[in-house]
Parts: sequence; C-alpha cells; structure tokens
Amino acid sequence: MSAIDLQLDSQGRLLHFLSVEGLSRHHLTEILDTAESLHGVAERRVKKLPTLHGKTVVNLFFEASTRTRTTFELAAKRLSADVLNLNIATSSTSKGESLLDTLRNIEAMQCDMFVVRHSQSGAAEFMARHVKPHIAVLNAGDGCHAHPTQAMLDTFTIRRHKPDFPALRIAIVGDILHSRVARSLIHALNILGAGEVRVIAPRTLLPVWVEQLGVQVFHAPQAGLRDVDVIVMLRLQRERMERALLPSEQEFFQQYGLTEERLALAKPDAIVMHPGPINRGVEIDSRVADGPRSVILEQVTNGIAIRMAIMSITLGNHARPAEENA
Amino acid sequence: MSAIDLQLDSQGRLLHFLSVEGLSRHHLTEILDTAESLHGVAERRVKKLPTLHGKTVVNLFFEASTRTRTTFELAAKRLSADVLNLNIATSSTSKGESLLDTLRNIEAMQCDMFVVRHSQSGAAEFMARHVKPHIAVLNAGDGCHAHPTQAMLDTFTIRRHKPDFPALRIAIVGDILHSRVARSLIHALNILGAGEVRVIAPRTLLPVWVEQLGVQVFHAPQAGLRDVDVIVMLRLQRERMERALLPSEQEFFQQYGLTEERLALAKPDAIVMHPGPINRGVEIDSRVADGPRSVILEQVTNGIAIRMAIMSITLGNHARPAEENA
Amino acid sequence: MSAIDLQLDSQGRLLHFLSVEGLSRHHLTEILDTAESLHGVAERRVKKLPTLHGKTVVNLFFEASTRTRTTFELAAKRLSADVLNLNIATSSTSKGESLLDTLRNIEAMQCDMFVVRHSQSGAAEFMARHVKPHIAVLNAGDGCHAHPTQAMLDTFTIRRHKPDFPALRIAIVGDILHSRVARSLIHALNILGAGEVRVIAPRTLLPVWVEQLGVQVFHAPQAGLRDVDVIVMLRLQRERMERALLPSEQEFFQQYGLTEERLALAKPDAIVMHPGPINRGVEIDSRVADGPRSVILEQVTNGIAIRMAIMSITLGNHARPAEENA
Repeated sequence: MSAIDLQLDSQGRLLHFLSVEGLSRHHLTEILDTAESLHGVAERRVKKLPTLHGKTVVNLFFEASTRTRTTFELAAKRLSADVLNLNIATSSTSKGESLLDTLRNIEAMQCDMFVVRHSQSGAAEFMARHVKPHIAVLNAGDGCHAHPTQAMLDTFTIRRHKPDFPALRIAIVGDILHSRVARSLIHALNILGAGEVRVIAPRTLLPVWVEQLGVQVFHAPQAGLRDVDVIVMLRLQRERMERALLPSEQEFFQQYGLTEERLALAKPDAIVMHPGPINRGVEIDSRVADGPRSVILEQVTNGIAIRMAIMSITLGNHARPAEENA
Repeated sequence: MSAIDLQLDSQGRLLHFLSVEGLSRHHLTEILDTAESLHGVAERRVKKLPTLHGKTVVNLFFEASTRTRTTFELAAKRLSADVLNLNIATSSTSKGESLLDTLRNIEAMQCDMFVVRHSQSGAAEFMARHVKPHIAVLNAGDGCHAHPTQAMLDTFTIRRHKPDFPALRIAIVGDILHSRVARSLIHALNILGAGEVRVIAPRTLLPVWVEQLGVQVFHAPQAGLRDVDVIVMLRLQRERMERALLPSEQEFFQQYGLTEERLALAKPDAIVMHPGPINRGVEIDSRVADGPRSVILEQVTNGIAIRMAIMSITLGNHARPAEENA
Repeated sequence: MSAIDLQLDSQGRLLHFLSVEGLSRHHLTEILDTAESLHGVAERRVKKLPTLHGKTVVNLFFEASTRTRTTFELAAKRLSADVLNLNIATSSTSKGESLLDTLRNIEAMQCDMFVVRHSQSGAAEFMARHVKPHIAVLNAGDGCHAHPTQAMLDTFTIRRHKPDFPALRIAIVGDILHSRVARSLIHALNILGAGEVRVIAPRTLLPVWVEQLGVQVFHAPQAGLRDVDVIVMLRLQRERMERALLPSEQEFFQQYGLTEERLALAKPDAIVMHPGPINRGVEIDSRVADGPRSVILEQVTNGIAIRMAIMSITLGNHARPAEENA
C-alpha cells in the first residue's frame, strides 16, 4: 500500500492527512468547504464547537515549532478535544525508545489523533502505516517532503480572494529546494486546476522534481512576477541549508526579495503570501509585508479553520463502522 | 495617547490592565469588589464559572515565572477559558521574529486576551497600543516598571483584614529600587487613600520617584516600623541587582530583615505580607513568615481571585458594541 | 503517625495513595474494581466522565517522566479535571524555595490533588504529612522506595488475565535493587494473596528487604522461570546504577534477558509484563516483547484506568464531611 492509498479508506474517504499528492479535487474541495463553514466560529462570542468533545489529540513534535503546534492546539481545543503536547526530543526517546515503541505507547493511551512533526521525510506516513485503525494521523511537516496543512491553508486563502482557479497565475519565490511548503502547495494547485504555476528561484535552490510537476521555471523575478495574481514568498530556511548555496542574505534580497517595485510587476490586485515567520529584508520588504496586498496574517487565521476542518473530516470518517475502513 | 489613557475606553471603562497609575478609586474598588465575589468560588465543590467559556487566553511570557504564570492559568481555567502557554524565549523569536510580528501572529490566531510578562518596561503597554480592539492585555510584570495585578492582590489582602484605608499606616521594606511590586503598590495605596505609606530601605535601594509619590522615607526599621498596621517585605531581587549595592545577604538581614523583635514595634494586630517567593533569613525570619501575623499564603490565594476579577472586567468591557470602545 | 496510617482516614478510607504497604486487600480490591468499571470509558465515543469537573490536579514532577506524567494527565482530563503541569526543576526551587514553601504556595492556589514524582524516597509522604486536609496526594514514584500506581496497574493487568491469585506463580526479573516498581508490586501481590512470588536477579542487584517479604529468590532464570504464570521484566535502570554492578548490557541479556527459549520454561499461557520503556535486547528480546504472550501495551492502557480509579476514590473520600477525615 503506497502512502497515497494509505490516507484513504476503501471508499476513498480521508482517514489520515499525510500528503496532498494522491488526493482528488473532491477531497481538497471538501476540506476547503468545511474550513469555510468553520471560519466564522472564531468570530462568535463562544468560539467552541462540541465536535471532538471526549477525543484526545496528541501533538507529537519531534522538531520544535511553536507556531505550527499552537495552531493545531487551538484548532483541537476549539473543537472541544483534550490536547496533549509531547515534545519528543526531551522525552523517552532520550531513554533509547524507538519511534515505533513511542507510537505504540501513546496509542495504548487511547488517543484518537496524532499530529506529527518530524525532521525526517516519511515520518507521518510511517506512523499512519503502523497505527491502530481508530487513530487519525495528520502530517504537520516532515523533513523536506510535505507540509500539507500549510498547502491547504494557502489554497484556502487564495480561494477566499480569487476563487476562479483556472484563471489564476501563481508565482512561488525563493528556496524551493528545501521547502516542504512549496512542494505541497504545487501539488494542491495542480489538483485544483490552477491556470499557471510558476517558481522563481536561483538554479541552486531548485529541486529536480519541479519540472515534472508542470510548473514554469523562472530565475529572475523581473520576468516571473509579470502579471501574476498571487505571489507566495518562501521563508529562507537558514537552518536547513547545509552549505552556502547563496553568498549572503543581502544578495538574496537584492536578487529575489519582494519589494514594492517588484510587486508592481504583478497584477494590480495581486495578493502576497508567506508561510511565516517572515525574515524582513531577506525575502520581503516590510512595506510589502505590512502593505495592502499582503494576506500573510489572514493565512495564520485561516490555518486554524483548515486544521479544524481536517480534524473534523478525518475523525468523522474514522467514526464509521470499522468494516467500512478495512 | 498615553499609557494611562490606553487602558480605558472613551467612557472610562477598563479595557486593558497595564498599570495602576492613572486609574481612579472607582476602578480599583470595582476590581476589589469583583474579586470579593469570586473569592468564594474556590471553596465551592465545583470551582468553575462559565464567564470566559469559548475565550482563549494566551500567557505570553518573555521572562520565566512559574508562580505568576500558574496563577493566571488557574484564574483563566476557573473562568472556563482555554489557555495557551507560550514561553517566547524558546519560541520563534529565536528565529529572529520581532515582538510586533509575534503579537500580530498570535492575534491572527483569534485569541481574546494576552497576559504579558517581559523584562523590559513598557512591553505590555506596547502590546496594548498595537493589538486589535477586541483583545485585552494584562501586564504580568514588566521590568522594574509595574506589576499591577500584584498590587491589586496586595490591596485586596489588606482590605480583607483592615478595610478602613484612611486609618492605615503601611510600611514597605527592602529593595524598593528594583521592585515593580513596590511602585505599583504605592500607587494603589495612594489611590485608595491609605492614611500613611512608608518605605524603609537603605539609600542605595531607593529610587528617585519615591518622594514624588508622597511616601515617608525611613532608613532604619526601628523608626519606620513603629505603630504600623501593615508590613510589606519585598523580595531581595538578587537576579536584578547589577552590582553590589549591599555588602551581603547576612548584613541585609541584620539591618532590615523582619524578626519577631522588629515586628513587635508594629501594632499588635499588624499583618505581614511578602510577594513571594520568600528568602528565609534574608528578608524575613522563618518565625515571622510562618507566624500568626503572616498573611503571605493568603496573598497567593487572593491572587487568583484578583486575576479572575481583572479578566472578567476587561473582557466584559470588550464585549460591548465596538463603537463604544473606539 | 506513620506513613502507613497517613494515607487512611479514621474509618480506614483512602485519603492519599502513597504506598501499597499498609493497605488491606479491601483497599486494593476497591481500586481494581473501580478501574474495571472505568476501563470501558476509553472505548466510548466520548471518553470523559464528569467526576472531577471543577477540580484542579497538579502534576508536581521534580524528576522528569513524560510517560508517567502523561498517563496521570490523561486520567485527570478524562475525569474532567483541570490539570496543571509543574516541572519543578525549572521552577522557583531554582530561586532557592524549599519543598515545604513550594507545597504551601501551590496549596494556597486551591488545588485539590498533588501528583508527586521525586528522586528522593519519602517525598510524597512528606507532602501528605504537611498538606491541608482537603488535598489528596498521589505518589507517582519516589526514589527507590515506591511506585504504587505502577504496582496497581500491574496487578490489574494480571487480574484481567488470571483472576485466581492464590493459584498464581509470578516471577519478577532483573534489577530489583534499584526498582521502586518491584518493591511496590511485591507488597501488592502479597496483600492480594498471590500463591508464589519469585525474584530472579544477580546477587549484586538484590536488596536486603527481599527475603523479609517472603519471596523466593533465584539467581538463574533457568530455574526461576519454570512453570510461572506471570513474568514481570524490570527495566535496567542505567541512570540509577551508580557504579558498575554488571559487566555490560550484553552480558545482562545473555544471563537474564527474556528470550523465546526462556519464555518456553514458563506455563504455555504465561503472560509477559514490563513497566516500560523497554530496552530491546537488554531485558527482553523483541520477539517476546512483540509476541503473543506480551501484555506490555495493555499495561499502558490499564495505567489510565487505574489512575482514574485512584483519583476518584481518594478525592471522593475527601469530599465527605471534614470531621470524618480528622
């Protein structure tokens, strides 16, 4: 069973959320529509729904990420789940426990959902492959492989501004090579039928898979940003760059940083996105990050609705009779 | 808009709680009366009220303080809020994110209240100045500037024992210079019309602002403690003392430590207070700390009721129509 | 008042849970029966009971243990309590606060239950001796002395498979000397009238108290495992072994590790237990740990039901009129 099949039951319903790859437009639209209906909850006086009351969600973070962990924690609490935060780096793996033993033990505590963040590609898939049938696994970022909830909140943000995907021209700018965000987002945009997806990056920061995904490759923002509807700036993953592929942050900003001048190349109503946290003056100028075209903070807000949606859908599908999930 | 105006809406109602300075006797009495009504909740079988159900309270601690963080967490949970603890020292500021970006991101997660602790004076005020209108900011201690919830729990403790403030003589003893507790408490006592406020400290630990606040200055406890109703011992902030302003802890105790002999100078029914954690044998002798005049542990209990009161009042005022808060 | 009397009220009801020693078969059976009734809760759609709604449970961990802390946290949340996790190593004890002051302060925050883990024997007993009458103290492991909730989940696991205790032959294998688990378990098995309790260990890992407890001592698993119904492998407490009492982990495995060959010495339906986390290839071979006779993961699941039971019983007994508890 491949990773792609792993996240669906025999009737094609979502049991885990590991990767955007292999999902259909139907799956993505179900998530986006559910998130839309949940988006208003945060504006109510009482921001809670009883959907996951009595369920236990475990944040299994093998790699620190306060921001991502926090949005999953808030999403789970707003669905009335109990949340357990396990920072595994400081936990029993230091006593030599293997990943599988850790999984088996937390599973035995009768939890219902694992939110997994790991520095190694495939960790969430490994979990989903070995976990008991009643447990849902969500990938909160695994190595350079995938960050599918980020891709969904990005497409959700785009759809709320520009719902006609076939008409859209979208540019993704920066360190594509080390970005699990870019990879997942390109898959999502392809599945949703986006008109044109471009990547803009120096040759050294372009992975080999880019051309297989049918994206347009640009090395200079001057050409790549022209007439686009959406600009997605990537974070320069300093901690992920193992050796100097770029002379300096200053030079990166000079060549690729999003300034007001470069933004003017895009359509007048283009939106500017970034997964955060932003490096001001490295990927993006503050005037753009804080300017009227920026939807960067909307992305944060949308991230909670998207995670609530994915939690509701996957656990809802687990609640059906066991034989259906076999 | 000054910090003083910042915490009130156009009709003078409390929106944030940043500083005791600038508040009226009406504001302080409202907090004390609300705390009095909440004080009994902790003695009930079910210690929870639904007041903040569906609200999210974020503990934004840029400076570690288990004790203060814990009382805010308990206060929020007893009002049925969801609580998010963010220790920012270990979080995305380490990725170079600015204070304002941190604020904007957490704000985008649709939280309702920020409880802010920071080593720099003015941090909570900065937050309140930049935060969206629906969010309440509480100052949980900022540098040497203010610790207003501590001042309120102290005055609450005094009022429960000795409600006639104009008749009271209150002595604050120790490291006034580095104490945000002392500064906030003196303001609160002045606003509530305390009869006489004294500070007792060596010259090296007295800040310039003391005389402007109309307090009586004493350098020796022998004179300063005579006939007082309330003694507030301050913690010797070893970690805040940048250079040797005192020869040794032993010498401090000899000159200023509260012993049974010195306590005998005060009125027979005087109460002894300390913000905790106490340094036994430095500021206070164990026989006094654990003796019949000590109300130090009552202060801890009262701190939860006071924080529940301030949370209820500020979020209640935010819930009114937006135009009223403009 | 001895530690044994300390955990019972004047009518012999359980107020604290500090040690299995001194409890009667009635107490242990009450815990096991209550756990049995709670065991099914985790299989419901809504895994929560309202038993401790409005109560505050504090996990006071002076020694890190993610696994144990997590099961107590889950048990408390499934009973609807609010949970406060305090890792005291990083807290105000670093400001020089004594254990008693820490206790007094958390007590003043009107918590209802302290779950205490400490590297020193007697720490939980110290807490129970000094705590206010309305607070229940649970021992989550103190030094080499006791780990009574582990002993109860072990006996619960045995009883679910083999309820006829007088007919049972049980072997405990490994580092008895440093094991609080072994000590508590032997007491529990004696109280419940187990037919025969054996320990299997090298002389260097056997404490003096073993023979006083009426257990059979074996130095070789070849003899000790013969015809037993239950095998309890202990974790090799590497972090607790102060000097080299064993040549190497490899040699320990060769002499004492539970292999399929050694398991074949036991009865055909014998069960294999381990408190976890297991050291594969040190105490136990993976084929045994993951094999059909292993109930190691059931122990984890049962640990939550047992802790829910002990929390319910002790806090329930505290809720009676105060004079009864005097």
